[in-house]
Parts: sequence; structure tokens; C-alpha cells
Amino acid sequence: MTDLTPQPCDLLIEAGWVVPVVPHGVVLTDHAVAVSNGRIQAILPIHEARAQFVPKETVARPEAALIPGLVNAHTHNPMTLLRGVADDLPLMTWLREHIWPVEGAVMGPEFVADGTTLAIAEMLRGGTTCANENYFFADVAAAVYKKHGFRALVGSVIIDFPSAWAKTDDEYFDRACELHDAWHGDALVGTAFAPHAPYTVSDANFERVRMLADQLDVLVHLHTHETAQEIADSIKLHGQRPLARLDRLGLVNDRLIAVHMTQLTEAEIALCAERGVSVVHCPESNLKLASGFCPACALLKAGVNLAIGTDGCASNNDLDMFGETRTAALLGKAVANDAAGFSAHEALRAATLGGANALGFGDKVGSLEVGKQADLVCVDLAQLETQPLHHVVSQLVYAAGRQQVSDVWINGVAKLRQRVLVDMDMDAIIANAKQWRQRIAGIERAS
Amino acid sequence: MTDLTPQPCDLLIEAGWVVPVVPHGVVLTDHAVAVSNGRIQAILPIHEARAQFVPKETVARPEAALIPGLVNAHTHNPMTLLRGVADDLPLMTWLREHIWPVEGAVMGPEFVADGTTLAIAEMLRGGTTCANENYFFADVAAAVYKKHGFRALVGSVIIDFPSAWAKTDDEYFDRACELHDAWHGDALVGTAFAPHAPYTVSDANFERVRMLADQLDVLVHLHTHETAQEIADSIKLHGQRPLARLDRLGLVNDRLIAVHMTQLTEAEIALCAERGVSVVHCPESNLKLASGFCPACALLKAGVNLAIGTDGCASNNDLDMFGETRTAALLGKAVANDAAGFSAHEALRAATLGGANALGFGDKVGSLEVGKQADLVCVDLAQLETQPLHHVVSQLVYAAGRQQVSDVWINGVAKLRQRVLVDMDMDAIIANAKQWRQRIAGIERAS
Repeated sequence: MTDLTPQPCDLLIEAGWVVPVVPHGVVLTDHAVAVSNGRIQAILPIHEARAQFVPKETVARPEAALIPGLVNAHTHNPMTLLRGVADDLPLMTWLREHIWPVEGAVMGPEFVADGTTLAIAEMLRGGTTCANENYFFADVAAAVYKKHGFRALVGSVIIDFPSAWAKTDDEYFDRACELHDAWHGDALVGTAFAPHAPYTVSDANFERVRMLADQLDVLVHLHTHETAQEIADSIKLHGQRPLARLDRLGLVNDRLIAVHMTQLTEAEIALCAERGVSVVHCPESNLKLASGFCPACALLKAGVNLAIGTDGCASNNDLDMFGETRTAALLGKAVANDAAGFSAHEALRAATLGGANALGFGDKVGSLEVGKQADLVCVDLAQLETQPLHHVVSQLVYAAGRQQVSDVWINGVAKLRQRVLVDMDMDAIIANAKQWRQRIAGIERAS
Repeated sequence: MTDLTPQPCDLLIEAGWVVPVVPHGVVLTDHAVAVSNGRIQAILPIHEARAQFVPKETVARPEAALIPGLVNAHTHNPMTLLRGVADDLPLMTWLREHIWPVEGAVMGPEFVADGTTLAIAEMLRGGTTCANENYFFADVAAAVYKKHGFRALVGSVIIDFPSAWAKTDDEYFDRACELHDAWHGDALVGTAFAPHAPYTVSDANFERVRMLADQLDVLVHLHTHETAQEIADSIKLHGQRPLARLDRLGLVNDRLIAVHMTQLTEAEIALCAERGVSVVHCPESNLKLASGFCPACALLKAGVNLAIGTDGCASNNDLDMFGETRTAALLGKAVANDAAGFSAHEALRAATLGGANALGFGDKVGSLEVGKQADLVCVDLAQLETQPLHHVVSQLVYAAGRQQVSDVWINGVAKLRQRVLVDMDMDAIIANAKQWRQRIAGIERAS
């Protein structure tokens, strides 16, 4: 303790517990986080903070845990408007008879803007401060994220089929490069290539992705090894498993954000670890679509950077990172046949720093460290559902619900205060969602 | 539509949607449920209900779904006080170094009363109206359920080891029979035998359970086929898998509530179907303890009555039947490798009527049918997290959280109104839980 003259700060958050994620496994009791210019200025005991800082604003949450904002490392947020439009169907029936006809009829800038807005509101209310977006009309989504001060890596879809977003290969690549140019250097919104999947992207297009990703220094966000069928089809068509094919095409490296990965050999896990591939585990989507089980514990043990994603609301059906993280921790143990295989602390790290690292934002966010951007979430643990409070991180991962998120900041800017969205009109968003329901019901009836 | 003189009723609940569970798969839009003397008197369109009834009280929930109260078909509710006391440990370390020492120091009437009270409050706030209890000091638990007007089947533990509850085999059986006598005929609280598990109960004690269960006409609530180890140990010790041994002892019949059942052959599934055994699936406990995967879809397909339970809070760590039902539906599909294998409607039925049937309460509750007791739950679907509302039951199972439960009635008596517990002091319950935290922390430090 030093004898400094009190210094100013923009915001002082005093919490019952601070879980910084770095260092791993630590819970700081009665600590405060000082924020200035959008960054974490100090993390220290509350009584020291009060002596050391003269804050413009103090937020006291003596019964809450302060944690890094959660990072949803794989989502298709415009599809929030299709939440539950069709469930409990085999994948191809679901896509061909429901999702594709509806998307064909509605997908465009308005759908993407409205769906992304609904998703941002849902994510903020659930403690998520950053998303890895993967959908058409990425330019629209990027602008919506920026407008709402929400952190995102927005992927430009590359797929071998025409869509409302682009008709030809060249158009897909042109749009991706335009998006990159438009957002290059932005503090909040980054861009990536999002080649859809090994079964929908040709070798030539993958090579073009690799070349451009290297040139522009951006990440590659890819669904892969999602189902056993995908592996079988790849062997039939290319004589190789998808990961081997991607390796041949030069894509298995530290730019790759590999989503799903339910089908992995030990050698493939070792390859991912060696090359610095990030794996995004979407347990609830994998369960709901009966895709298979990602070997999350084995990936962690091998040293692979593991992140967690909800996938889109058409296949999950929510953007609840608390629920997804809990499912990841529970399922991970069962799949590894080891109750000690995936701890609550490891799950929280995957949902925060793991995601930030996967998105290339690990130097900026994902943990509470001095100098990092202040993406912060308060979780109220005083509620009956998290009592008695024997262990903070156990309660956060295994018992707390997203409704216990009380306050959220992104870059030090308040986005949720005492459960109220600061700068979004929730009633208008709900009313708009109801209009989309009517519109989509009309399409479903007609199809 | 008839032209009747309006008749009185105690309560008329007008809901945007009524999901009666029976008939299966039905959602009634803009319907009302009339309740008198604790029973469902009528289910009809709102405009007809208004013409037909003069209610003492009307509750209008135009944006809510009214569903049967959820039935938590396996729990150890006093252990709510041990929520998260130890996690992420191998089963035997967890039991020997944490749970048993703590239980040894605290287990008694006060612990059971306080833990059960906390659990009832949590269950009510989450739309659960009935529990299948399995813990020591069943007499205390039964009295607490009754006091709070909560429906329960309270099992008397039978185990081959002494405890604070009973020292000898005779004492366990005496207590079980006393409990049965004390509660026989009660409208709200029933009793059962709860022999702990095949590996902790001798043949002699199982035979005694069977004889008494037949004589007293009560159910048998048993953990079984929970882990692969249990099967291996049974083969070693008894030369038989647990279910075969139980069959030899006359226990595989329609009195058996078989909990966990993660290890099942096709023949065992067929046997359960043939004999009318109810299976309680506790997916999150099975995942968290890495016990294995219950073949829920195969059980459903075979015609076995399937119920859902949370297990105790020391191993889950909540009593959230919305979360548990969702996990059951998601996991069921993945285990069966069939995205269509376990529908949202089937999951809701398992969480309501399946549970009621398992507990022998199927003629009284579990579905919304005229003449049944009015155990009712309103779920607010207007919230952002369940918008747009394309399909009601999809939202209930795959998107809604327990915090969206607005109102709960048991036997037509309001227990939760607009999220407020009617006759329980939530602040006092939380304060009491905090005292238990202190007390248990002292034990953990000392041990």
C-alpha cells in the first residue's frame, strides 16, 4: 500500500468478488475495478480503491461477481428471428423444407439488421459482450454492431452457391474485401473470412481464402468436422478427411477458427495444438442436431485454445452463454468419462479468454487485466438460486442463470444497468420481432 | 356452445396459450382454465369462459403459456444447502472428502427442514410443483412439504449403513413404516421406500422392501444402473447385473421408480417396458459426474414411462426443471443419433405427466384435464429471449428460462404471483442459507 494522492478515474466498480480469469483459478474478494478511457486502470481491494481513486461514477455490487464479458465464439445472429421456426427434424428436412425457403424469402439487409439488433439485446441481457458473427450481409451486421457499441468479429461468408448477398465467387470475394477495407483498424468491429464449410467450398475458393487471409492478415472462421457424414463425404469426394484437405490447402494454422469439431482423431487433435488452431465448441447445437460430441477435455489437455459458441438461434435456440458454458462443462466431463476433466474455472476461461483468443482479441479483452479494454459483467449471486454461496465460480458456471446478470459494460461504456438496457428500446425490439413472426408465418403457410 | 346460466368458479386463468399435455402435441390459443375446489373445472376458449363462469378471481396472462406444474422426479432437496460445496472431482473423492464429512457434521432435522424450505422456494420460482424426495429425516421433509402446500412423494431411505436417521436395518424399516402410517391418505404428501442403490442394499433388505411395498401398496424409489462401475461390481459380487438381481428379488415391476439408468441393454429396456417400470432421467447429474448416458429415446420408443429429475444440488447444482428438460431433449437426440428422436412435446410430457405417472400421481396431476388437481404454471413468453414466438412448445423447451415463470398454483392455491412467492419469506430463506454457508465453511476448514 502506497501513500499516493488520490487520482481520478471514470468508473469504479466495487464487487463482492472479482474473477479476473488471468491469473487462472483466482477469486478476489471485496475487490474493485477502476476504469478510465475504456480501459482497466487498476484491480485492487475496495478499501484501497476508495483511498486511491476519485471516480466520476461508482457502482457498488457487494453481492455480485464481476467477470470478463462472455465471448460468443460462433453465432449466426440474424437467425435469431428464426428462433424455433422448426425443430426436431433431420438436418436435411429442416434445411430444405424450413430454413432455406424462409431464408430465401426474407434474407436481406432488413432481416439482418433487425435480427442482429434483437440478438445484441439478448446477448447484453445475458452477459455476452462480443460475438463471432457468421452470416450473409456482413456489411449490415457490422454497422449494427458498431451502432450499438458491441464488440464483434464479422465474417464474410464464402460459399459455392449464389445467394441474395452475392451471386458469383468473385462477388463473394469482392464483398469480403470491401468489408475488410471498410472496417480495417476499427476498435470494436473486426472482419474475417467465413468460408462456409468443407462441403460447400471448392479447393480453388479455399486457396483464394488462404491467400487473401495471409495478405490481409485476417482470421478464417469455418464450420468443420461437424458431422460423421461430412467426414465420409469428404473421403469419398477428396480422398481425405476435411482437416487433411484443409491442411493440403494451407489453412490449418493459427488463423483458423474451427467450429464444431465433433469428429476428431488423436492425430487431428495434436495437429490443431501444434498449429495453433482455435476450436469453437457449440455443445447445444451439436446435441440438438445430433451431430456428435466434441472432445472438449482432450482438446484442453492437448493445449488447444478452446472457445464456446451458441451457434444460431435456429438451431439452439438461444444466445445464452451461461447455459452454453454450463453444458460445455457438464458434457465435457461425460464425453471424457472424467468428472474432474473440465472444471468450472476452465469453462469460464473458455467462455471468456478462450473466445477472445480465438477471435484475435485476446490482447484486448477476455480477462480482467490492467490495460485491457473494460468489457465487464456483474452477476448477482444474492438470489435464492445461487445460495448458499460456497464457491463463486461453481455458482457462476453450474447454478447461475443469465437473468442474474445485472450490469454490462463494453469498452467501459454501460450497456446494461440493473437489468435495464441503456441505449436500446426493448419494447420496440420485441414489437419488431412480433412483426417478423407474422411475416415468416405467412411464408411458412405459402410454402 | 351452449346457453347456460353463468356458474361460479374459484379462479379463472386466461392465457395466450394452454398446453394441456393430454391430448399430446396440442396447443390451445386464447384459452382459459377454470378452477374450483382445487380442481380443473373446465378448459375452454376465453370468450366462452367469460360467458360461462363468474369467477371469484380472474388472472389474465395474454402473453403467457399455461402448462401443468413440472414434476421433479428425483431429488435430494435438503442437499440444496450443499450447492456447489465441491465440484469437478472424481465421485469417490467428492463423497469421501467433502460430502460425507459435511453431512456427518450437519445432517439432522434442522438441516433437512432448512434445506427443503430453500428447495421449495427455488422449485416454485422455477415452475416445479411436485418433487420425488429421497433423503434422510423423511419425516421432517414431509412436514415441510405439507406446511408449504407443496406436492411430494417422500421416500424413506433404506441403506445398509448407520446414519443420524437410523442405526440398524430394523430402525430404517421402522421409520419407513411410521412415515407411511403418518401420511397415509394425505392429499398432498405421499410416501415411498427409497432403498439407496443396489451396491448399498443387501438382498435381505431388498426382499423386505418388496414385501412391505406390496403389503402397503407403495412405490420403490431406487438409484440404479447409474455407472458402469456399478454394473461391473454387481456382476463380481452377485454374478448378475443389478436389474437381473432386482428381478430375482421381485422388484422389477410397476412399483419401481428406477433412477439414472445410464447402462442398459436392449433386453433390459424391453424388460422395463414389459413390467411397467418408470425411468427417471437425470441428464445433468449423469453428465457432471461422468456417469454415462441414459438412452432416453430408446426408452421412449420402447414405451417406457420416462420422467425427468434434477438430482440433488450437490451434484447438479440446481433444481431447474426447465434446464433439465432442455438438456434431456438435446442430449436424447445426440445419444440416439437422431435429431427427430426426442421432440419438444415429448420432453414437456416427460417433465410433467411422465413424472406424475412415475410417482403414482398420474390420475391427479401431470396434465391439464377436467377433474385433475389444479397444479398450474404460467410462463411469460413476451420476453425478448422467447421472441419471435413461432412455436409455443419449442420456446418453452428450447428457449425459455425458469425466470420466465410468472405464476404457480398447487391444488388451485396460488404459490407464486407475478414472480413473488405468496407465503414464503424469501429474504429470510436467503439469510438462513447464508448462515448455513458459514457453518459448513467451518466444517470444511476443520476437516
